[in-house]
Amino acid sequence: MTKDIKTSAPPSGGWGAGLALDVCLTPALIPLYNVSDYIVVVIDIFRATSSICYGIENGAEAIIPVSEVEECAAYREKGLDYLLAAERNGEVVDGFDFGNSPFSYTPEKVLGKTVVLTTTNGTHALHLSRKAKKIVIGSFLNLTALCNWLKMQNENILLVCAGWKNNFNLEDTLFAGAVIEHLKTSGYVLDDPAIAANDLFQVGKADIAKYLDKTSHGERMKKLGIEKDIAFCLQVDLTTAIPVLNGDRLVKLV
Amino acid sequence: MTKDIKTSAPPSGGWGAGLALDVCLTPALIPLYNVSDYIVVVIDIFRATSSICYGIENGAEAIIPVSEVEECAAYREKGLDYLLAAERNGEVVDGFDFGNSPFSYTPEKVLGKTVVLTTTNGTHALHLSRKAKKIVIGSFLNLTALCNWLKMQNENILLVCAGWKNNFNLEDTLFAGAVIEHLKTSGYVLDDPAIAANDLFQVGKADIAKYLDKTSHGERMKKLGIEKDIAFCLQVDLTTAIPVLNGDRLVKLV
Repeated sequence: MTKDIKTSAPPSGGWGAGLALDVCLTPALIPLYNVSDYIVVVIDIFRATSSICYGIENGAEAIIPVSEVEECAAYREKGLDYLLAAERNGEVVDGFDFGNSPFSYTPEKVLGKTVVLTTTNGTHALHLSRKAKKIVIGSFLNLTALCNWLKMQNENILLVCAGWKNNFNLEDTLFAGAVIEHLKTSGYVLDDPAIAANDLFQVGKADIAKYLDKTSHGERMKKLGIEKDIAFCLQVDLTTAIPVLNGDRLVKLV
Repeated sequence: MTKDIKTSAPPSGGWGAGLALDVCLTPALIPLYNVSDYIVVVIDIFRATSSICYGIENGAEAIIPVSEVEECAAYREKGLDYLLAAERNGEVVDGFDFGNSPFSYTPEKVLGKTVVLTTTNGTHALHLSRKAKKIVIGSFLNLTALCNWLKMQNENILLVCAGWKNNFNLEDTLFAGAVIEHLKTSGYVLDDPAIAANDLFQVGKADIAKYLDKTSHGERMKKLGIEKDIAFCLQVDLTTAIPVLNGDRLVKLV
């Protein structure tokens, strides 16, 4: 079984030869995968995983993903080094420091701090993936750095799209397709959702912002007045840090 | 709310104006939809819903979808008018009359008969959709007849892809995209999975057989030696009958 062989040189066909490159289109489908066989990449590009990439790049000591607003609020008592970020349905919850906007994750705000983050979809996907060999965070911001690292791991890869309320969304799927675009010539075996994600990326890649404009989330974002956030999250390779889950916190992969 | 208005003439924008045209990518996601708000089209083109369309067209009195092989076997005692079709993992179960191959659903075999059918994925989707306003069966065989009928209903439409073992598959999604191609100029509002399905149809439509050749199911089909079935199931508009669920049985919509 190629899957179990660790080599110091890429096998013929590339690093990923014979390994699985799968896409889980929504957190509701995670139970269909044996996540312990994979490195999982969690994807919630509008805006949780983009903000996480940006925050870790900008020197946040850690970002702690939690499922519930109450769990987030409980960190208030632990001291001033914690910044509390809570968002539901795309809006900052009353009484919290901030939500998911990447503009809240600048060096001025997060350097040396620990951010406690609860979001609608991304945190949910993270928690359901906790048995993975490793969980890393992906977004257009760290696309190339992430893919270069993934290629070197010689492991099965599962791209988990956070989606919207447990259902499929286009933006996370399109990003999964962008990751596949980087990896597909390395010999990985793609499942049907991975083939679909990459084909959708081909359809949208010439102008991703325009393509996503027709989606449901694009509409929601416009209503919330956060088009600037969308444009920010679609910047490719603004960062190189790869956030990785270590215990209950996301830290910079070193 | 446009959704509740029944008119004898199409509203401006077409019959579907303001109505939802949604795609449920796998049976695992059906609970995310309030199916009682929709006409549901169940899609399992390789091969259950293609065979159902062909069988109903060819004069089968009814096709009874059941979930379990044992449930199917129990009909043996009810007499000789029942043909028992059971398939698991793409192969006929020992002791049954036939499985899912459309070539088993010719007039010579099914005219005047009731077929009891259990399949891996399609029956599962049917059962989970049972609260819908109406459940009809779709495949490339009855594509245009189905779409013309759907357009006239002035209802929300949910295209339910049976998928493969509760996960996404390309063939059913591509067919959903073909239905959307027929309906999308009538003013329906598409959800993200519907947009994706239609875009994938655009990618594959020039040569659907070739496009699907790269999928996991295509590989499975080849191993089972049923490429002829696939070619048969990709024929467009071979039939005009629309199978509809009436109680526990699929019959011809009149």
